[in-house]
Amino acid sequence: MARPRLSEHTRQQLLDEGVAAFLTGGYHGTGLKEVLDRVNVPKGSFYNYFESKEAFGAAAIAHYAECLGSKLTGALARVPDDPLAGLRLFFAQLTAEFQAANYVGGCLVANLGGELEGSDVCRSALAGAMRDWRNGLRKALGAAQQRGQLRADMDAGEMADLLVETWEGAVIRMKIERSTVPLQRCLDRLLGDYFQPPIRAGGA
Amino acid sequence: MARPRLSEHTRQQLLDEGVAAFLTGGYHGTGLKEVLDRVNVPKGSFYNYFESKEAFGAAAIAHYAECLGSKLTGALARVPDDPLAGLRLFFAQLTAEFQAANYVGGCLVANLGGELEGSDVCRSALAGAMRDWRNGLRKALGAAQQRGQLRADMDAGEMADLLVETWEGAVIRMKIERSTVPLQRCLDRLLGDYFQPPIRAGGA
Repeated sequence: MARPRLSEHTRQQLLDEGVAAFLTGGYHGTGLKEVLDRVNVPKGSFYNYFESKEAFGAAAIAHYAECLGSKLTGALARVPDDPLAGLRLFFAQLTAEFQAANYVGGCLVANLGGELEGSDVCRSALAGAMRDWRNGLRKALGAAQQRGQLRADMDAGEMADLLVETWEGAVIRMKIERSTVPLQRCLDRLLGDYFQPPIRAGGA
Repeated sequence: MARPRLSEHTRQQLLDEGVAAFLTGGYHGTGLKEVLDRVNVPKGSFYNYFESKEAFGAAAIAHYAECLGSKLTGALARVPDDPLAGLRLFFAQLTAEFQAANYVGGCLVANLGGELEGSDVCRSALAGAMRDWRNGLRKALGAAQQRGQLRADMDAGEMADLLVETWEGAVIRMKIERSTVPLQRCLDRLLGDYFQPPIRAGGA
């Protein structure tokens, strides 16, 4: 039997549509058929790309994490001398995207993290996505610390962990209440207050 | 046609089993049949209690919120003179339950909040659950402020909002990483540090 010809373009399209479908319909609420129909791939060919819905879910999570990482890198690169402004730019971009989507979707990691009990394959992909996202933030937070933009007495990794967790919870609440207030609070309270350097005594 | 005889006991059983099933299987991943089988209720009778799966989902969310509220009230009542200790007791109880369940389940509000795009009925129930949970915490945080256990320069409602959001995100991460570290960080960072009263100058 001839080896099937695989197209990287089709694979990327499947992942893009998979992310979009899982975001709005959830993992269990998404049928492979609707994804395939959008990309015009017959079901038989799908299995040349991914061996199962579960493997496809894991690949979509990894794809989503890559996109998130690119957005963070891009935002930081726009203001190379101001990592705190870069972080704010990144979160403002995510917020604008959530608003543009009318709060439908949110964060794939949080959504599938809530839903995916049974699949170790997907859980492992979610853990990887969470780790990459946290490590990207840690790097930016550390750079902001070095410039004196953020307090130096808290580990940048610990800050990144708390920021990721608060943001994910805020995104869930944003979806429930259809409001960006929780997102804004996360940024104001953490980046704008708790992570700020102490006001120097006598500096006023 | 005779009006069907409804049993409050059966209704409660359906809600208990619904919460358990939605927690582990998600909304879309849960079939009504499995819930009915556990309670020994035929499908026809189910619709005497709830008009649809969606209405059942909303009722299960409200039932879950009530249980959460009772746990908080119970924990606070155990140490009536120490609301901060009561809050810690409450979160320790939730943490112990998550561990006992081997991190399967988590918080129904976060799980369904991630998954329930399409249903305004369920979204409204989730918003109500979130509001009740936040208001219960606000009351306890306010009491802790009045006793000087927590800083007085931050609104108790704002603290409660941030605590709810960080906790929900931490629960999602707990599920993904099968670890209570995110939960502990939420409590240590917020209750144990950010929400603490300032150390008085000259007080050392």
